[in-house]
Amino acid sequence: MMMGEDVEGGSLGSYQERPRTFPNMRNKAYTPLIFRILMGINVRVLFILLLLTMGLIFYIGACTSGIIVFVFTVCIISFLMSVYLTKWVLAKDEGPPEMAQISDAIRDGAEGFFRTQYGTISKMAILLAMVILCIYLFRSTTPEQEASGVGRSVTAFITVVSFLLGALCSGAAGYVGMWVSVRANVRVSSAARRSAREALQIAVRAGGFSAMVVVGMAVIGIAILYATFYVWLGVDTPGSMKVTELPLLLVGYGFGASFVALFAQLGGGIFTKAADVGADLVGKVERGIPEDDPRNPAVIADLVGDNVGDCAARGADLFESIAAEIISAMILGGTMSKRCKLEDPSGFILFPLVVHSFDLVISSIGVLSIRGTRNASVKSPMEDPMAILQKGYSITIVLAVLTFGASTRWMLYTEQAPSAWFNFALCGLVGIMTAYAFVWITKYYTDYKYEPVRSLALASSTGHGTNIIAGVSLGLESTALPVLVISVAIVSAFWLGQTSGLVDESGNPIGGLFGTAVATMGMLSTAGYVLTMDMFGPIADNAGGIVEMSQQPESVREITDLLDAVGNTTKATTKGFAIGSAALASFLLFSAYMDEVSTFSQEALTQVDIAIPEVFVGGLLGSMLIFLFSAWACSAVGRTAQEVVNEVRRQFIERPGIMEYKEKPDYGRCVAIVASASLREMIKPGALAIISPMVVGVVFRILGYYTGQPLLGAKVVAAMLMFATVSGILMALFLNTAGGAWDNAKKYIETGVLGGKGSECHKAAVTGDTVGDPFKDTAGPSLHVLIKMLATITLVMAPIFL
Amino acid sequence: MMMGEDVEGGSLGSYQERPRTFPNMRNKAYTPLIFRILMGINVRVLFILLLLTMGLIFYIGACTSGIIVFVFTVCIISFLMSVYLTKWVLAKDEGPPEMAQISDAIRDGAEGFFRTQYGTISKMAILLAMVILCIYLFRSTTPEQEASGVGRSVTAFITVVSFLLGALCSGAAGYVGMWVSVRANVRVSSAARRSAREALQIAVRAGGFSAMVVVGMAVIGIAILYATFYVWLGVDTPGSMKVTELPLLLVGYGFGASFVALFAQLGGGIFTKAADVGADLVGKVERGIPEDDPRNPAVIADLVGDNVGDCAARGADLFESIAAEIISAMILGGTMSKRCKLEDPSGFILFPLVVHSFDLVISSIGVLSIRGTRNASVKSPMEDPMAILQKGYSITIVLAVLTFGASTRWMLYTEQAPSAWFNFALCGLVGIMTAYAFVWITKYYTDYKYEPVRSLALASSTGHGTNIIAGVSLGLESTALPVLVISVAIVSAFWLGQTSGLVDESGNPIGGLFGTAVATMGMLSTAGYVLTMDMFGPIADNAGGIVEMSQQPESVREITDLLDAVGNTTKATTKGFAIGSAALASFLLFSAYMDEVSTFSQEALTQVDIAIPEVFVGGLLGSMLIFLFSAWACSAVGRTAQEVVNEVRRQFIERPGIMEYKEKPDYGRCVAIVASASLREMIKPGALAIISPMVVGVVFRILGYYTGQPLLGAKVVAAMLMFATVSGILMALFLNTAGGAWDNAKKYIETGVLGGKGSECHKAAVTGDTVGDPFKDTAGPSLHVLIKMLATITLVMAPIFL
Repeated sequence: MMMGEDVEGGSLGSYQERPRTFPNMRNKAYTPLIFRILMGINVRVLFILLLLTMGLIFYIGACTSGIIVFVFTVCIISFLMSVYLTKWVLAKDEGPPEMAQISDAIRDGAEGFFRTQYGTISKMAILLAMVILCIYLFRSTTPEQEASGVGRSVTAFITVVSFLLGALCSGAAGYVGMWVSVRANVRVSSAARRSAREALQIAVRAGGFSAMVVVGMAVIGIAILYATFYVWLGVDTPGSMKVTELPLLLVGYGFGASFVALFAQLGGGIFTKAADVGADLVGKVERGIPEDDPRNPAVIADLVGDNVGDCAARGADLFESIAAEIISAMILGGTMSKRCKLEDPSGFILFPLVVHSFDLVISSIGVLSIRGTRNASVKSPMEDPMAILQKGYSITIVLAVLTFGASTRWMLYTEQAPSAWFNFALCGLVGIMTAYAFVWITKYYTDYKYEPVRSLALASSTGHGTNIIAGVSLGLESTALPVLVISVAIVSAFWLGQTSGLVDESGNPIGGLFGTAVATMGMLSTAGYVLTMDMFGPIADNAGGIVEMSQQPESVREITDLLDAVGNTTKATTKGFAIGSAALASFLLFSAYMDEVSTFSQEALTQVDIAIPEVFVGGLLGSMLIFLFSAWACSAVGRTAQEVVNEVRRQFIERPGIMEYKEKPDYGRCVAIVASASLREMIKPGALAIISPMVVGVVFRILGYYTGQPLLGAKVVAAMLMFATVSGILMALFLNTAGGAWDNAKKYIETGVLGGKGSECHKAAVTGDTVGDPFKDTAGPSLHVLIKMLATITLVMAPIFL
Repeated sequence: MMMGEDVEGGSLGSYQERPRTFPNMRNKAYTPLIFRILMGINVRVLFILLLLTMGLIFYIGACTSGIIVFVFTVCIISFLMSVYLTKWVLAKDEGPPEMAQISDAIRDGAEGFFRTQYGTISKMAILLAMVILCIYLFRSTTPEQEASGVGRSVTAFITVVSFLLGALCSGAAGYVGMWVSVRANVRVSSAARRSAREALQIAVRAGGFSAMVVVGMAVIGIAILYATFYVWLGVDTPGSMKVTELPLLLVGYGFGASFVALFAQLGGGIFTKAADVGADLVGKVERGIPEDDPRNPAVIADLVGDNVGDCAARGADLFESIAAEIISAMILGGTMSKRCKLEDPSGFILFPLVVHSFDLVISSIGVLSIRGTRNASVKSPMEDPMAILQKGYSITIVLAVLTFGASTRWMLYTEQAPSAWFNFALCGLVGIMTAYAFVWITKYYTDYKYEPVRSLALASSTGHGTNIIAGVSLGLESTALPVLVISVAIVSAFWLGQTSGLVDESGNPIGGLFGTAVATMGMLSTAGYVLTMDMFGPIADNAGGIVEMSQQPESVREITDLLDAVGNTTKATTKGFAIGSAALASFLLFSAYMDEVSTFSQEALTQVDIAIPEVFVGGLLGSMLIFLFSAWACSAVGRTAQEVVNEVRRQFIERPGIMEYKEKPDYGRCVAIVASASLREMIKPGALAIISPMVVGVVFRILGYYTGQPLLGAKVVAAMLMFATVSGILMALFLNTAGGAWDNAKKYIETGVLGGKGSECHKAAVTGDTVGDPFKDTAGPSLHVLIKMLATITLVMAPIFL
């Protein structure tokens, strides 16, 4: 393991041997099985097969609705667009060999972990699919259902297939996110040697590629399922199912997506933060070496973590957000159309698909608006990358307002209420403004330009203790404004919907919930661009790591540091965005759940009365679930980080040459430790989230049976869901903001204030940062997913509560 | 300020001058105005006046019910008992002059702060009383109310008077708690020089004194109000108010009590923990001097804080718990009796008063069972004080079960449902078992004999960061078991009540809620003893501080350290007890609120449906309130602690002789800083808690008016209350347990494991401890009070939501 004499000058030089990054890992690049099969087939055959599939899809789409054809077309164009973006990114150079070697090590580690992780997840998904199958085969069905041909076995089949398809697509979304980031990172590093602007452009386009794929896949997946069921079940032909009931069959897709996203986020989040915390605690605090220093044995694990934790997991998270939101809005659109007796309900049902098709278009424009050459009119030596990204966001938002208005007029115009579309357009505007407010609030609390982070930095000057107290208070306080914004959004969108003129048979206004749904869509109408900005962060972070590890000149590091800092802000703001949309989507899914229960139990569940003790207890248990889940997610990181700390300490003691660049650290052991620990640790919180609503539902169903309270199980689960949503939103806001603020308080001190790097104040700030790591990148984002997963699991599992 | 030559030997010797502990403070002992007036009157006149008052009270009681006379008698006996306990404690010696001098400084600081704090609180109370008066003078009343003579002005008068009386009694309860603790601390220190057992006995009896006064005052206050209103309004005479409606008039008393308790807990909590954190961060972490070392300028402020934060505030907290629980149970008993058409409802209404009368008796027996001489059969050199206290608790619990059973048979036997009393006795048993389970669970998570605290200590060995992550996870996780216990308690007590045989006119069982109320009473049936154990903690802590500061021999300190450690555990367990009872009491108050709204609006409010968007938003806002309140409570401590840190650092720099005992630190400045900061900082969170439910209620009332939703304001406030209760319970459990666990993890390391005192591991543990301080002693206990304050404020302020 001793390195040659050439390293004595203080520079590590190029690696003589590839680091062992994962046990039993092949050194050749891994290609997923499906690609290998496809590559084995003759290209012409493949092309014909592809054409045939496309033709079939379009045929089915055409049989369903013209809108579906439009959606298909846009999705396929945006896939072509994303192919262009990849080709563009991959055409960039990989830089000198030392960069490529580090990048290879990261890629191997990330792909190895991804494979093992998704292997575990897919086994669990198949197990759960069998459970769902059993539940649906033994459920009771209504006579109408049997009559319309959607009996027990058909529903069972549909739910299981949607579930598996959702899980598969979610896995693919995660894989795509990681695939591009492990390839783009080194190209960004290399470009940073030439120009900041080019590095920025590569990172943005790489992020844009995965954003297009993630959003496009969510949209086309649902569109294909919808069209297939439509044609297969002969919807809207006499004696068959009504089109307004069709969206309820899609919930399996949302559940599959959130199931995979939950474990992806948990496993990835534990991986990335355990490695990060472990590396920082020994490297920065104890040994005083910089971040991403090649002497730190945990540094490769940390860089691998950025890809599996941030890119893969966030891809799955946003995929699931969009899927859940589309499906819940379709269900509500269907229910409302039915109650309004609209002649053509397809506009209201398919509206979310159209909104996200436009999302693909406008986000692509936003991404392409970020150019690689400098704006001639700007005189400053280095432009602020944040301002460039913000400009792209502004373009996207303006386009979003225009296309949203147009799509409401196109889709939601109905003779029965001629001005309804305008009210709904206003709802969309409410959503877009909510998204904007969320981004702004998060920035206020996490950017060191503003007061909160500055006082947090000041609190570090009086010690570790006051830093933590100040950070916790900051995080808790930061929940207030977002809650006020979301409250105003819910109430005003509901009111706009109620006054839209849509009424049911007895003349009562009923557009309120759909108004909230439209606001949610408005909020997510720039999802593509937001996801791009989010993906940008870990790519920039990784590029910085590669630059640091390959010992590039200071000027290159300055560029990547700048990009990294911007990435931190965009990551924090997109988390605010994600939680805001989760809050709205969960409220919609809750209404969808009540609809579903009413449909299947043939007994209206229109109220969840928390004055009933059992229902109140359900609420208590729901909130408790959030606390326990967060506890287990954080402690998983803490425990794994302790293992990393001990391993890194051991290596520094056993190989004293590491600190003088004379010995090479064993990066692979750290990767292996973190990988196996995170696979082990993701099970407990994940299982808790999936099993507890089922157990609560069944227990209270039985209790209700013996105490003569019908639907008690369903009501208790509803309360559990609502309280968990509320507590989950608050807890996630707290965790994300506190974590982001701690991180940036540390960065603020590193700019030289309050003693700068190496001071006691900086050490206290690093403590805060390590505490914030599992908050903001493990527990916080896992809670976003958990909230929506709870909503979809209750929808899918409803039969066992009744 | 230079000390004489005699201090050079390393011991401080006796103080040459009294430390300046508070600006503008008189040096003579402070006597409250009321005592001074009383002392001015001739003793015989006073005695006759007292006899006359007693006679009048008994006469009114006799006119009301024999039960009231029983309650009066027990309360007066227990006041005599508490006079005996004080006399016994005060007869003990105050030890050598250096002890007495330190004790005087603490007493002056505590009484000075108390005076200023309660001055501020009383001004706010009078302001609020005027607001209540206005609200009630302009409210709408029902025709029946007017007919029964309880019109607008009478209700206004009654509510305001009850509010002020509640506030006054709560202030008195706090004062009594502090009064005895500042006198007992030095006597415990002095006794510790002789025997551990005697020191324990003094601390317990001092705690017992204030527990008897607090519980007795809550009971007799309500009994006097009840009897007075009964006689004055001519209840149950034809054309007058029904006795079943009388308890609703008492809610003002509960609100007054919780209003004062909230500010007492906030101000006291900020005071004690800011001083503690500030002292620890500089003294222990930076300078490496032991806790309570006389060289630390913040040490007197810390000791003063124990009295104003722990004794005074906890007295007010428990007073308010008991008052709120008695009143809510009386309201529910009244409502149920009315719906059952019971012939004599007084048993059901007055049951809580009887339970707490027995509480006074059995707790006195428990306190007296702790003897000053050693048990001859015990051979160990030093008995475990925890075991002694636990034995007393066991005696009290056994007696509680017996007396509770007897009182249910006596009070709750009714011809209509002959076996109901037995069901309610079982409810009481559920409550007692819940209390026991809570105590046990808290012990498991905070005692270093068990796994959780040990792994927390282990996590400190890898740094400050992992210690905090582990502590936060531990705290979050510790919410699960209590929630399960409380869920089982609510559901089973409700079920026992429902099956008690009590039915309304149409034959529906209606005893459920009263069953939950009885379980709450069961839980609080040992409140006197629990409060004694709680008060014991800060007295022992203070005694330890006095011993340390007066430089007593090691053997004396060992005894006080042991008592202090036990005090930490009892403090943590009684917090668990307090939060459990708050959870149950709040659920009852919620039902009482629904009853009240239904009565006044003449429109039944039986459901709070969270599927209505506005109601859901109310829930969101309620949970947010908890997060924001906790944030402000913690940041108040953090900010004040930073001021203390800077002041202590300044003194160490400007007076280098302090560290060599050559110069005396300026204790007074620290006390003054903490006092003025805590008075300033308590306003913001307190005002938030009081104003926000009122604002939300009024805003949604107006919104409901314009959108045609009747009672919207009341429903939204109800949801706000429920979500706030649930989040508040979880947050308080999290904060209390995490804080206790951090404290004890530090203590565990100080026993010598993992490197012991002074190691890096210990430093990390001290960081955890300082973070835990505001959690467990400021924000956590303030949340107990907040939960009940919210419930009482919605009850009292209900007229403005309708």
